[in-house]
Amino acid sequence: MCIFCSIVKGDIPNYTVYEDEKVLAFFDVNPTSVGHTLVIPKAHYSSLLTCDPEDLTHVMKVAQKLGNQLKEKLGADGMNILSNVGAAAGQSVEHFHVHLIPRYENDAEIIKFAGIEKPNFEELLEKIK
Amino acid sequence: MCIFCSIVKGDIPNYTVYEDEKVLAFFDVNPTSVGHTLVIPKAHYSSLLTCDPEDLTHVMKVAQKLGNQLKEKLGADGMNILSNVGAAAGQSVEHFHVHLIPRYENDAEIIKFAGIEKPNFEELLEKIK
Repeated sequence: MCIFCSIVKGDIPNYTVYEDEKVLAFFDVNPTSVGHTLVIPKAHYSSLLTCDPEDLTHVMKVAQKLGNQLKEKLGADGMNILSNVGAAAGQSVEHFHVHLIPRYENDAEIIKFAGIEKPNFEELLEKIK
Repeated sequence: MCIFCSIVKGDIPNYTVYEDEKVLAFFDVNPTSVGHTLVIPKAHYSSLLTCDPEDLTHVMKVAQKLGNQLKEKLGADGMNILSNVGAAAGQSVEHFHVHLIPRYENDAEIIKFAGIEKPNFEELLEKIK
């Protein structure tokens, strides 16, 4: 069974930050920063890309509210709001979740934009149509 | 003037991936992967945390739709969907934007979860209330 579905069901304990009928938010037990929180829909979707749009809306509104709350209460200097899709992107649990990662001056690097050679953007536009 | 507001206004050219009355999506001209796209509200908000909730909803629905489109058309293996808040989190333009970063097997590392020592979660819960 999906580990996040087990958390929703109550079979695995969690540190609940927020809960309502549709959404659960809890601390990541393997945090990458102090206050690292996950926001998930209670219904199972493999990722953000397959989530029902109404559930996505609700998850994001909760993420915004909690993001502001975490930033204020923890005195964070910034925040990464992140969802990974697929193992190639670092997704480890295949149940849609949004990471709220409070950031602090001089903390560890979490996002690293490598930079690639510029592609031919016109060709790329054609390709995605 | 905000560089993204200038793009919305048409004063700075862009490679438009999608546009409607409220939202614009365009290629990041300094991409970190092939197909790296930004989705922004046309109205100016400094970040996701200060965005009007209705605009946030619309941006995320567009991000979902384009994310699926990019993944399919570019044959990507995954995707990072990311918004940074504040310089400490790597935000470089203070106009809310969502990064759609297509990911490919064996590409460069973009997200790095460092892992920190587990904090006292009960104390942390108290702190954020």
